[in-house]
Amino acid sequence: MIDLEVLKEAVRKRKARSETYGDLEFLRFSDDFQDVPRGTVVFKEEVIWGYPHIGRIFMLEKGLREQFTSPFWVEEKIDGYNVRVFKNEKGVFALSRGGYICPFTTDRLADLINLRFFEDNPDLVLCMEVAGPENPYIEESPPFVHEDVAAFVFDIAFKNSRKFLPVEQKIELLERYGLPGVNVFGRFTHGDIPKIKEILLRLDREGREGIVIKEDSPSDRRAKYITRYANLNDIRITSKNMLQLPPEYYTNRILRLVLFMEEEGLKEDTELHRELGKAFLHGLFEALEEFKKDRKVSTSYRCRFRTKENALLFMEQMRRRSKHIQIIQRSLEKEGEFYLLEFEKVFMNMTGLLGHLLSGGLVFD
Amino acid sequence: MIDLEVLKEAVRKRKARSETYGDLEFLRFSDDFQDVPRGTVVFKEEVIWGYPHIGRIFMLEKGLREQFTSPFWVEEKIDGYNVRVFKNEKGVFALSRGGYICPFTTDRLADLINLRFFEDNPDLVLCMEVAGPENPYIEESPPFVHEDVAAFVFDIAFKNSRKFLPVEQKIELLERYGLPGVNVFGRFTHGDIPKIKEILLRLDREGREGIVIKEDSPSDRRAKYITRYANLNDIRITSKNMLQLPPEYYTNRILRLVLFMEEEGLKEDTELHRELGKAFLHGLFEALEEFKKDRKVSTSYRCRFRTKENALLFMEQMRRRSKHIQIIQRSLEKEGEFYLLEFEKVFMNMTGLLGHLLSGGLVFD
Repeated sequence: MIDLEVLKEAVRKRKARSETYGDLEFLRFSDDFQDVPRGTVVFKEEVIWGYPHIGRIFMLEKGLREQFTSPFWVEEKIDGYNVRVFKNEKGVFALSRGGYICPFTTDRLADLINLRFFEDNPDLVLCMEVAGPENPYIEESPPFVHEDVAAFVFDIAFKNSRKFLPVEQKIELLERYGLPGVNVFGRFTHGDIPKIKEILLRLDREGREGIVIKEDSPSDRRAKYITRYANLNDIRITSKNMLQLPPEYYTNRILRLVLFMEEEGLKEDTELHRELGKAFLHGLFEALEEFKKDRKVSTSYRCRFRTKENALLFMEQMRRRSKHIQIIQRSLEKEGEFYLLEFEKVFMNMTGLLGHLLSGGLVFD
Repeated sequence: MIDLEVLKEAVRKRKARSETYGDLEFLRFSDDFQDVPRGTVVFKEEVIWGYPHIGRIFMLEKGLREQFTSPFWVEEKIDGYNVRVFKNEKGVFALSRGGYICPFTTDRLADLINLRFFEDNPDLVLCMEVAGPENPYIEESPPFVHEDVAAFVFDIAFKNSRKFLPVEQKIELLERYGLPGVNVFGRFTHGDIPKIKEILLRLDREGREGIVIKEDSPSDRRAKYITRYANLNDIRITSKNMLQLPPEYYTNRILRLVLFMEEEGLKEDTELHRELGKAFLHGLFEALEEFKKDRKVSTSYRCRFRTKENALLFMEQMRRRSKHIQIIQRSLEKEGEFYLLEFEKVFMNMTGLLGHLLSGGLVFD
């Protein structure tokens, strides 16, 4: 558990905030504070620890040799959003990375995973990526999720603890309950590096994000490594809304791209130039077209809910939490067994800047 | 002149700092402070005002209509560094944009301009861009300066005043003294916008930077507008050292690029994608190659001095003022009538980061 003094100080410094969801009350760490990671959630009876930051290696071979001394597991990293799922006396809930209860994921849990897992294992937490074309948070989606959303469990954690189950025990539990897990490519040693490079080249060709490496030792050391494709795709997906992200977002990804090429012995060529240039420009030209037509820059989302209440709760949360983004509900209608929600995020910064610039405004930069 | 109280407060707040150059002593505004621009320099007898910020328009036609009501002059913007040249009882000196006396430019003034101008006009200040392949500050150079450096006067200012001479009087004085001025494309009205667009397309094709627009009225309103080429070139030139610049540098230029295309009716195409991608990637691949070979990321400069003392003074200034950049003198030798200085800037941030990443280091981002 977290020391009471730490908790009090975090509240005083506004690093932990009081939240409610229905009749659930809890404290949410909105930032890292001392050794407590952002997204940690404190209920009266129990703590769900925030999912830890995983460091990134930019070079695969050197990184594996430098960071890992024992054999390690290599798992697929999925391009979705991270949730932690747990059960308490009020039900089963999905926590976002930042420690909010996500009404969308919580609504859809029964479609995504076998909830009997929590009846038998009330002290465990499923850490999973939710991904797919109909997710309400990010525009990216893995190529193998063709509709709606799917879950990919990558870790099983304990309540009131920062520890995860070892990979083999995780795999066994996932199998026992028929839970969907991320691909586990295997348990490797430094001698297998050529094999791992092959895996990355394949993931890159197939438009997949990358890998997470977990040392098979009590230290449970971890690192992640991302494909060329994913770096380009991150740029492509966000360029329409370039002002919303810290600009390091871009320079960082370009550097990763160059080092992926270096690692895999790929040469700088016209095709790569073209892809990167297009990733930056296409979204901006789109933004410009949309602005000229509709005086706004936005992206559209759709997602399916089981209950209308959760859809409305989701919209309310989005509106309350979006900075510089206007959330506009387009439709919410029963379609088969779901409520289909369609909404739009209007990027106020880009909309405002284009408005200023296109009307001939002056900028001092 | 500047109010004594403002001066005292600026010194107290470390916005104005005491500087010396040989036996010259002065106060230098290191930041904008109240209405005093950065680079303003205060001597006992006189003030040389900092060169003002000129706002940028991102759309040519709309910008001209929005910002200018009277006829306006269109002049070429030169890709070099900005100095203000003035004479006092100790000699003729060149001030950098930030208000330092530049030993390089000061050394070469007699080669760049006709100094008799100051004998007849001791109260005037020449504001000029110095540009060329052998300048010690920036890697960019206009296509029409083939060796060494050249000066391009764009404004004539008064000592102790923020005013500039009207463009026609400036042109007349430049002609009278045979001083090199920037291209003046003409005096235009809104009706001439198609002509001005033509000028920009030509500048873009010829690899030139852009224009500065000056209203021909007592308000002397100004704005600048940059070509597609210059935006790409800024990215190309700096990508090797991407960590040194604020990342907005890049997102800003991509947006300007897109709006230049829009203004000129040019379409997004594969060639533009390729050019932008290459601008970003080529420098980084170069950085990587250099690092693998020499364990450093650097660029080389060479420039010519009239006296050895000024070359050494220049090196000392560079060393003292460079943050995160190591300055290494490679050679300083007499060559014909000049001292040829060769030096290197080693980018410590990029060098350090590549060292960390290539040895398999972890990054939490």
